[in-house]
Amino acid sequence: MRKNIQKRQSGCPIAFGLDTFGDRWSLLIIREIMLRGHNTYSEFLAAEEKIATNILIDRLKHLEAENIIEKNRDPENRRSFIYTLSQKGRDLAPILLEIIIWSGAYDKRDFALRNVLEKINADRKGFEASLTSE
Amino acid sequence: MRKNIQKRQSGCPIAFGLDTFGDRWSLLIIREIMLRGHNTYSEFLAAEEKIATNILIDRLKHLEAENIIEKNRDPENRRSFIYTLSQKGRDLAPILLEIIIWSGAYDKRDFALRNVLEKINADRKGFEASLTSE
Repeated sequence: MRKNIQKRQSGCPIAFGLDTFGDRWSLLIIREIMLRGHNTYSEFLAAEEKIATNILIDRLKHLEAENIIEKNRDPENRRSFIYTLSQKGRDLAPILLEIIIWSGAYDKRDFALRNVLEKINADRKGFEASLTSE
Repeated sequence: MRKNIQKRQSGCPIAFGLDTFGDRWSLLIIREIMLRGHNTYSEFLAAEEKIATNILIDRLKHLEAENIIEKNRDPENRRSFIYTLSQKGRDLAPILLEIIIWSGAYDKRDFALRNVLEKINADRKGFEASLTSE
């Protein structure tokens, strides 16, 4: 399965994007960091979608290799690591916001969360800037 | 593998979007229809990323079940089918455009295609409107 995640050589920017960040679990890790301020392995593991440990480890390595996330030792606990987004990772914010807007229009399930959509609707520009800036 | 594509029940709009349209091959099928005017099974199969027939069949069924694409008999050849985007599918345009913009900034390979990016840069609003309207 993972060998499929090598970059396709078509030159198409959509293929490039999907090969770089576009699997279901990678974007949820990016969501954890970008929208929830979560930065540790155990926080990612606690996300409600229940990512499996082997997939989480694999995707963290992949995102680090793609320079979308950065892995550093926690200064307050040298035995653990902190994951943050690079500028390349933060620049994914407009894609995530468009996904949230689209889902807001089409997810009719009762339990659909709308808290981030409300922030977008209130001040998209400012909210997006807060996500993409360092 | 396919059982993973069931919708996760977290209520998160990003998870909803990814579960609905967000696998690597689904978005490329949407690209074929939205940006290239391709509408048939054999055109999708001819895309340069070389989608396998079993994956293509599976993703077409999935996208049809999600009401993102519509499948109709070709009026000029009643034995074949034409796939088009529904409004729900056309409304994915802003997400695709944001992926193209992001890849334009970060895909440094010589063969990266920039033709759609140039259309976006020239007139994003008009281009987006042409993609989302019927």
